[in-house]
Amino acid sequence: MEEREFDVVVIGAGPVGEVAAGRMTAGGLSVAVIEEELAGGECSYWACMPSKALLRPVELVEAAKRIQGVRGAEVDPAAVLARRDKVVKRTPDGGHDDSGQTEWVRSICAEFYRGRGRLAGERRVEVLSGGEVSQLLTAKHAVVLATGSRPTVPPIPGLREAEPWGSREVTNVDVVPDRVVILGGGVVGCESAAMLAGLGSSVTLISRGGLLDRNEPWAGELVADGLRSQGVNVRTELQVSEVSRAADGTVTVKAGDEAFVADQIVSALGRRPATAGIGLESVGLDASKAVDVDDSLRSTQLPWLYAVGDVNGRNLLTHMGKYQARACGDVLVARAKGEPDGSPKLTAYADHEKTPQVVFTDPQVASVGLTEKAARERGYDVRVVDYDIGWVAGASLVADDYTGKASMVVDEKRGVALGFTFVGQDVAELLHGATVAVTAEVPLETLWHAVASYPTVSEVYLRLLEAYGL
Amino acid sequence: MEEREFDVVVIGAGPVGEVAAGRMTAGGLSVAVIEEELAGGECSYWACMPSKALLRPVELVEAAKRIQGVRGAEVDPAAVLARRDKVVKRTPDGGHDDSGQTEWVRSICAEFYRGRGRLAGERRVEVLSGGEVSQLLTAKHAVVLATGSRPTVPPIPGLREAEPWGSREVTNVDVVPDRVVILGGGVVGCESAAMLAGLGSSVTLISRGGLLDRNEPWAGELVADGLRSQGVNVRTELQVSEVSRAADGTVTVKAGDEAFVADQIVSALGRRPATAGIGLESVGLDASKAVDVDDSLRSTQLPWLYAVGDVNGRNLLTHMGKYQARACGDVLVARAKGEPDGSPKLTAYADHEKTPQVVFTDPQVASVGLTEKAARERGYDVRVVDYDIGWVAGASLVADDYTGKASMVVDEKRGVALGFTFVGQDVAELLHGATVAVTAEVPLETLWHAVASYPTVSEVYLRLLEAYGL
Repeated sequence: MEEREFDVVVIGAGPVGEVAAGRMTAGGLSVAVIEEELAGGECSYWACMPSKALLRPVELVEAAKRIQGVRGAEVDPAAVLARRDKVVKRTPDGGHDDSGQTEWVRSICAEFYRGRGRLAGERRVEVLSGGEVSQLLTAKHAVVLATGSRPTVPPIPGLREAEPWGSREVTNVDVVPDRVVILGGGVVGCESAAMLAGLGSSVTLISRGGLLDRNEPWAGELVADGLRSQGVNVRTELQVSEVSRAADGTVTVKAGDEAFVADQIVSALGRRPATAGIGLESVGLDASKAVDVDDSLRSTQLPWLYAVGDVNGRNLLTHMGKYQARACGDVLVARAKGEPDGSPKLTAYADHEKTPQVVFTDPQVASVGLTEKAARERGYDVRVVDYDIGWVAGASLVADDYTGKASMVVDEKRGVALGFTFVGQDVAELLHGATVAVTAEVPLETLWHAVASYPTVSEVYLRLLEAYGL
Repeated sequence: MEEREFDVVVIGAGPVGEVAAGRMTAGGLSVAVIEEELAGGECSYWACMPSKALLRPVELVEAAKRIQGVRGAEVDPAAVLARRDKVVKRTPDGGHDDSGQTEWVRSICAEFYRGRGRLAGERRVEVLSGGEVSQLLTAKHAVVLATGSRPTVPPIPGLREAEPWGSREVTNVDVVPDRVVILGGGVVGCESAAMLAGLGSSVTLISRGGLLDRNEPWAGELVADGLRSQGVNVRTELQVSEVSRAADGTVTVKAGDEAFVADQIVSALGRRPATAGIGLESVGLDASKAVDVDDSLRSTQLPWLYAVGDVNGRNLLTHMGKYQARACGDVLVARAKGEPDGSPKLTAYADHEKTPQVVFTDPQVASVGLTEKAARERGYDVRVVDYDIGWVAGASLVADDYTGKASMVVDEKRGVALGFTFVGQDVAELLHGATVAVTAEVPLETLWHAVASYPTVSEVYLRLLEAYGL
């Protein structure tokens, strides 16, 4: 078998692998990209894109109901599913057409291999198709792992045997179940509840903790209120003891003294880096752990190995994976050319304390940087202020009786914001001002001069600064 | 007549005068506030608030039409007008109830006087009620003018006699005219066209130039496209020669070789500082001009006189007036206490090159800082990049076939952004990230690390930086 050499071999052509490849070919490197499933990855077909395609019409109908002067808006479930089908490029057989993505990979002059990429020693990668090695690749400079993550199914008795839906099945739903029980109060659980309830399911959401526990505690409470007003039965602090599926397909979930009966069960109990089956053992790494990397995305163990996106465990978020991919791609171009490492572009420093996230429930949760708890744990001298977004004139125009809240976590020593959280309708696009402020560590007394137009919801930034005492 | 003394006398209780008063009483000064019309001002009853109350339902119905999966949404014009009535606190006699605002003024421990405030020599102000002086006030430290602006009616033959509607009549419309001609392609003209068309009028909009000419040229073109798709007959580069109103109320507008016949005409041809009748002559100032002030909002002529908001002609925008009011209030507190002037809070520097504005048409126009033309005129070494917002994944989820554009004006010498413009659906809340970046002069290579969540429309920030070459 002919062995082919590239400057860099990328395993995984999700958005993260694609971005890394794009930066590198633009920088003059030869790049091979290997994908076992679909180019475009989890995000394009089974996660971000279909979930938002399904959530957006639901969200808009809810927004319409909150405004006197709009009448008649309702969700057309069949049309919503058809919209999703278009977004994820569904084929008649229920699969997905990723030709647009593979063409994009070729358009950036990278070589695309369909198959499983597996490390086979230092800077060597096998491509497996149908269980056979179909191609051997060597990487002159580096191998980049961008294999993403996989859902975890914890050892709840009967859960695995009940063949629960994961996020893939939820976002690719064709027949909306009448009754659903969702296990898990994280992002996937909450968004799945909003989605399925919006499409007409009777939903029970069970979390052993609260909802969205990595956010400020009140964020999860506001989302619970929102889900309840969508008709979701939200049950927090409830431990599931057993799951069983009857012969007729009915699922029973036992938790505490209660039993919840449904037509379908969704397991949304976390994800873990996809490190299995990619040959990490062949280079002496532990395949049971995330691939540990430094801020240049280089393995802390092997100088020729890089890992970007979920597989390195830094931040399981598409946009942070893409961010890492930009840094990693630029790093490899610079290192291949023997350029110095000093540029601020060659590090993914925002990963640590400047990460944004949006949860597309109704209300939405948009946050960046550190929560109060995280900031205190890291030893900052913290002060927190908050403000009811409904008091902002612009919010009262966006929705009658707007409900929402914003908070700002301040590092008192430096007079800069460490984090912001916004919960409310349409706060997703409100976040970037906070992200710029947190990332650039803009002093609050400069932020004071960043004026928000009247009457926009963004005036909440002014209100937070006033609440702080400016 | 008993003459009363206050630390500061504020003439005008619109949002700008109210904010200045609030900062000053919080700082321990005694303050009198005088308002001839309604506390809360133009913005609360006749401008920003009612216009957005009317525009928002129209905009939401248009947004619903752009999403497969939402059906049946339509504007209910009577309910929209009722919504507006609530927002502007309409009374049964067609007036407005400003008791909430006067109570607010009293809640901050300022003295409220209803009447016309008029300067009567240095630091002296008369309150006139029914043409009589009802109160004499003296200001120990300063008089603050916050009288706002008035619409101008240019000398087009027949226009004044035709008794055209201004923005007040548009935003307070009760019976929507069948056919309307709007003169003026600025913000008021464009928003009025969107509003009336959305409520069912057949609208012709005539501008002697383009639309929104202070923005990037393509912004006005996209708004013209949007208005046309709402059914508005947009006529640019057309000079009106004559207006006449017949006995039956029908209005005829002659422009070029054409005549436009309508049931109502709207004059949206600019505003000027409200300097008349406030006694400027009594202190030696020219009442035909804006009151010229420095960055502390102090008159460049008289050290005891301050002017905030439209009356100083710096920026005829509510939010910039409120911004100036915060600075002015803080300045007066500091000066009354003999504190030094050095704090960055004591200057309204963002007025010059860091001003944001949102136009609530469909598409919206959101901009901050300098346009390309303005930046070049000021001698900056300029490079401009732009990006089609419809190509952003998040935008394709917000609306099927999203149409919009973003641009960034960069100062090449310093590597910072001088201005941003966004045109598209729901871009109003997208702006604050740009405003923070422009105001804090965040280097582009730092902005690179301010990550936008996937899939939000805010990813357009990344695209602009990539287009720039980062």
